Amino acid sequence: MTKKIAVLGASGYTGAELVRLIATHPSFEIAALSADRKAGLPMGEVFPHLRHLDLPVLQKIDEVDFSGIDLAFFALPHGVAHGLVRQIPDHVKIVDLSADFRLRDAQEYRKWYKLDHGAMDLQPAVAYGLPEIYRDRIAGARITANTGCYVATSLLPLIPLLRAGAVGAEDIVIDAKSGASGAGRGLNEPLLFSEANEGFKSYGVAGHRHMGELDQELSLAAGRPVLAAFTPHLVPMIRGMQATIYAAGDAAEIQAVLEKQYAGEPFVDILPMGAIPQTQHVKGSNLCRIAVHADRRPGRVIILSVLDNLMKGASGQALQCANIMLGEAETAGLNLAPVFP
Amino acid sequence: MTKKIAVLGASGYTGAELVRLIATHPSFEIAALSADRKAGLPMGEVFPHLRHLDLPVLQKIDEVDFSGIDLAFFALPHGVAHGLVRQIPDHVKIVDLSADFRLRDAQEYRKWYKLDHGAMDLQPAVAYGLPEIYRDRIAGARITANTGCYVATSLLPLIPLLRAGAVGAEDIVIDAKSGASGAGRGLNEPLLFSEANEGFKSYGVAGHRHMGELDQELSLAAGRPVLAAFTPHLVPMIRGMQATIYAAGDAAEIQAVLEKQYAGEPFVDILPMGAIPQTQHVKGSNLCRIAVHADRRPGRVIILSVLDNLMKGASGQALQCANIMLGEAETAGLNLAPVFP
Amino acid sequence: MTKKIAVLGASGYTGAELVRLIATHPSFEIAALSADRKAGLPMGEVFPHLRHLDLPVLQKIDEVDFSGIDLAFFALPHGVAHGLVRQIPDHVKIVDLSADFRLRDAQEYRKWYKLDHGAMDLQPAVAYGLPEIYRDRIAGARITANTGCYVATSLLPLIPLLRAGAVGAEDIVIDAKSGASGAGRGLNEPLLFSEANEGFKSYGVAGHRHMGELDQELSLAAGRPVLAAFTPHLVPMIRGMQATIYAAGDAAEIQAVLEKQYAGEPFVDILPMGAIPQTQHVKGSNLCRIAVHADRRPGRVIILSVLDNLMKGASGQALQCANIMLGEAETAGLNLAPVFP
Amino acid sequence: MTKKIAVLGASGYTGAELVRLIATHPSFEIAALSADRKAGLPMGEVFPHLRHLDLPVLQKIDEVDFSGIDLAFFALPHGVAHGLVRQIPDHVKIVDLSADFRLRDAQEYRKWYKLDHGAMDLQPAVAYGLPEIYRDRIAGARITANTGCYVATSLLPLIPLLRAGAVGAEDIVIDAKSGASGAGRGLNEPLLFSEANEGFKSYGVAGHRHMGELDQELSLAAGRPVLAAFTPHLVPMIRGMQATIYAAGDAAEIQAVLEKQYAGEPFVDILPMGAIPQTQHVKGSNLCRIAVHADRRPGRVIILSVLDNLMKGASGQALQCANIMLGEAETAGLNLAPVFP
Repeated sequence: MTKKIAVLGASGYTGAELVRLIATHPSFEIAALSADRKAGLPMGEVFPHLRHLDLPVLQKIDEVDFSGIDLAFFALPHGVAHGLVRQIPDHVKIVDLSADFRLRDAQEYRKWYKLDHGAMDLQPAVAYGLPEIYRDRIAGARITANTGCYVATSLLPLIPLLRAGAVGAEDIVIDAKSGASGAGRGLNEPLLFSEANEGFKSYGVAGHRHMGELDQELSLAAGRPVLAAFTPHLVPMIRGMQATIYAAGDAAEIQAVLEKQYAGEPFVDILPMGAIPQTQHVKGSNLCRIAVHADRRPGRVIILSVLDNLMKGASGQALQCANIMLGEAETAGLNLAPVFP
Repeated sequence: MTKKIAVLGASGYTGAELVRLIATHPSFEIAALSADRKAGLPMGEVFPHLRHLDLPVLQKIDEVDFSGIDLAFFALPHGVAHGLVRQIPDHVKIVDLSADFRLRDAQEYRKWYKLDHGAMDLQPAVAYGLPEIYRDRIAGARITANTGCYVATSLLPLIPLLRAGAVGAEDIVIDAKSGASGAGRGLNEPLLFSEANEGFKSYGVAGHRHMGELDQELSLAAGRPVLAAFTPHLVPMIRGMQATIYAAGDAAEIQAVLEKQYAGEPFVDILPMGAIPQTQHVKGSNLCRIAVHADRRPGRVIILSVLDNLMKGASGQALQCANIMLGEAETAGLNLAPVFP
Repeated sequence: MTKKIAVLGASGYTGAELVRLIATHPSFEIAALSADRKAGLPMGEVFPHLRHLDLPVLQKIDEVDFSGIDLAFFALPHGVAHGLVRQIPDHVKIVDLSADFRLRDAQEYRKWYKLDHGAMDLQPAVAYGLPEIYRDRIAGARITANTGCYVATSLLPLIPLLRAGAVGAEDIVIDAKSGASGAGRGLNEPLLFSEANEGFKSYGVAGHRHMGELDQELSLAAGRPVLAAFTPHLVPMIRGMQATIYAAGDAAEIQAVLEKQYAGEPFVDILPMGAIPQTQHVKGSNLCRIAVHADRRPGRVIILSVLDNLMKGASGQALQCANIMLGEAETAGLNLAPVFP
Repeated sequence: MTKKIAVLGASGYTGAELVRLIATHPSFEIAALSADRKAGLPMGEVFPHLRHLDLPVLQKIDEVDFSGIDLAFFALPHGVAHGLVRQIPDHVKIVDLSADFRLRDAQEYRKWYKLDHGAMDLQPAVAYGLPEIYRDRIAGARITANTGCYVATSLLPLIPLLRAGAVGAEDIVIDAKSGASGAGRGLNEPLLFSEANEGFKSYGVAGHRHMGELDQELSLAAGRPVLAAFTPHLVPMIRGMQATIYAAGDAAEIQAVLEKQYAGEPFVDILPMGAIPQTQHVKGSNLCRIAVHADRRPGRVIILSVLDNLMKGASGQALQCANIMLGEAETAGLNLAPVFP
């Protein structure tokens, strides 16, 4: 039976990506699209690449009729969801792509997002949206907090390894790189083509907001506090993300743990040891590809993890969570092979 | 019922793109992949983005068992198909992505491709693979010669306009631009990233091989010889193609002819007059988007036509033809929305 | 003797490019930099690539002490110069990079820039800043109106050809392409990296503001009204511009006229007939490279002209004009070879 | 007095970059250019961006008349210089841009380059070409072994810090990123535009050949063996390199050591603590820019170091060494501001 879907915040990249995906989903149908500042416009004017699709006109959130909606994606800026969530009728399931429900601790939320959280009481019922790790919890949740892109790239290899004790919890360095679409569609001088192309830079060194979420999940997996070094970088490409992870451990053991963990997973692909995953080889798909390398320093490894930040790092993963929450095949609408070249 | 498909020449970009598309096709199944110089390798080694798919190992063409094959795509270099075609059993339908069967005249073939044609006797039974124009003919053909990318971009607007007499046959200027993937995967210094990025250039000025095909089809449509100016350019992007067409005509009439011609067509999208199509808005999809502009010079128009050279300009269109030839829904496997950003 | 230079509007790309060039000029010294909204900031904060240079702090224009200034570059938005010019003391020569003094006719200015011109009385004394064509006039002018980038790319080949009657004045088509830096540093959604990269589009079809200037100069050269078709396009590269020009004429004659006109010119390089100039081969230099091709249509030619839009299309040419106005060697500060790759 | 310069290996990117730089050098003149496979061609055919310069025709190395040559740059592949060096007359000074004379130990050379070294006896007289560290030694050397690009980016911050004991010699992680020009002009599928653009990947994980050189110099500086983790990555840009360095140390102390070390150095720019250097802000210049960040992990720091791999990482640094060896001003020919945007 067709499920009716609302995408709130459809004028941003993650919203548009959800629309792209749902357009080929066998049993989901887009019933409402919201974008407060673009309300009244057809989606094809805000995103001309979608103009051939038959889509609802953009509305203000307040105008959306949620009565027949099965699930709403919140593709909204950080800080909106925790205020909005109580306005959504109870029968509507929610996948929140923002950070609002990712942190289990109100103080951590305040620390990283400089906001008081308005719905911390709901937090215990929220699932953390990393399906390969928290699938069962997501299946039963009303709200899923979709994992941040950098964090998903890092956690997919690290959670099973920390749980298994296959990597040391100390001395983890995560050197992360993202394409520009991760920064969204907002106007920002460093994101102009002339500024960003033909260049590379770090940003948010030792202070990126994803750190709270990263600490939380790494510590949970390790069973004790983990504080990894984490530096994000901006790469002159649109989509793509890599985490280069330096840690203590035995490469063969790590390879074995990851292969076992992800055997049968449709979206996590463990490469042969020593292989090189490339972001351009997952572009447009929901795949995360991971490879393990023994470092030349004895007892240390280098783990490479790549995904498409708008897909497995955002909208693809959100749709995967929605499929689980609504009892669909987990891969529905997500069987897209990467677009290469 | 599932149709068995062979892709000959699967180590090039158009071959890989066919595999990507067929992977989500509801009733096609890849039964054989050939690549003479890569025979024996798994497809995932030649194209790592496809390594998660369950695909046949690459074979030499001679080794392919065609007995159960319904249709073969020839994604081979120019000059191979006309020799190969007689080796393929009669029950196998063929979509040839090379230029070998596009030209109706052996001399024209020799002129542009510097080769003698070995199967010109088959030419009368070949359909020219522009489905929106030659759909019926394609439906009954054993061999379809898929239109070249530059030519498809130009003909989709120009054929109906010349047929209707809505543009003058004289003084047509086609200034065409292509992303680098149109040049294929061959090693070639000007196609190195360091040479091609941050640059723009013409090539094949007044001598590009697509001109023979262009002349043939434009002249057929006009009912008299048409010789358009045609200059291709290389754009520092991977996918995408635009033809900027300058011609004599009345913009309103042209708009009306195109809207009428393409009403109901799933893959040709006529924009409102004066709109701007963009290649990034058709990337990864089988769409061709066309817009008409009145020039400030009275009685003249500027027509913009964009598509993804690997999709509607090559493999997408080839799959569209194959669907027609095998009685499938024409859009099967091709309902992909553009990947943007 | 050292000449003191002011750059007004130093927070935009053309202003920064002037600073880059003057930094190696043997006899020019930057004495003042203005940028009203960034006043008080060091230049190295607005343009970190220049932070190693010893430069004056940014000021408001009103605060600049012009008493010792020999020449001021106006790197300001269109519409500012004609109001500002009377505030500048008479001893200060001016090179205006905006369009304010390019048009000889107030109505044309109003038509293209939607503004009333406040200083049209000065127009007769202004030189049009295309040094290879108007060198003598520039030498004696107080104000030079630097040619627009698209226009310079088109006029360098076309003015001598129209003057010589070597190309027809009818039926000129100029299909022009520009890198993104031509659009400046202003925040604009289509110029975001994620929107512009991996894409190509026309813009300002049949209505770009450079057309007034183009008409004026082509008509002057031809001795009668010339109305060329002109379509600009945005290329996903930072710097670079090409005009692909279609016209009536004899290729050999055209080649001869251009070679004669530009023999000895340091910045205009006429390639052998049939060669392909590339924008990446002039990047960072003040060169304009031009090549002539016979079209396959008898009696018609295709002319390719490339330059770096920030150099010969803007700041490089402006410095060339300034050198002429101040009696310096015309190549001073401009002997930079292109940066390739 | 003018010094006569030979560039051996002028058909590669570092050779072309040397020609670009020497073209504006006040006292160097290019007297010979070699490229064995391109011998007989004008340089402007091999590198069209240089066609406006008056340059010697390319020769085979054997044909070069070294009698009047003051200094030869070896811009040749690894493995050539150690055989070639004895053929060069003694009066010719040499700056070798290959790795042949960088390693002080023949076994290390064999390990990383899989070659026996043919001129290890000359090694003691070779200077290691990192001018800010080994200036005096370079001044007196006949042969200078220009530092590798990744190594220069890493050593400029790390050598003074290890010498001062300001960073721990254990647990150094160098996550390095390079533009594609670092891989040279050779034909290589992964370097095709369509393969490399819109993608990011590691390569040479735990096995890049620069590691030998890195180990050697880090260990020398620390006074004991140092084995850093080092992972290079390919960024879809032409020029630019960054090392993101994770180490133990106190940020304030490190900042002070670096500021003291590089005070007065024209080409090493220590940014204020916590600033972000960007590769696009050093493009085309000989600058290395370095910034220090305190990590959120107590007692640890993150150091960012950027340069243009063809300039301070190769040809710019080579020219700097040549200036020192020939008694020129160290900055001669190198006062180019970065080209941005």
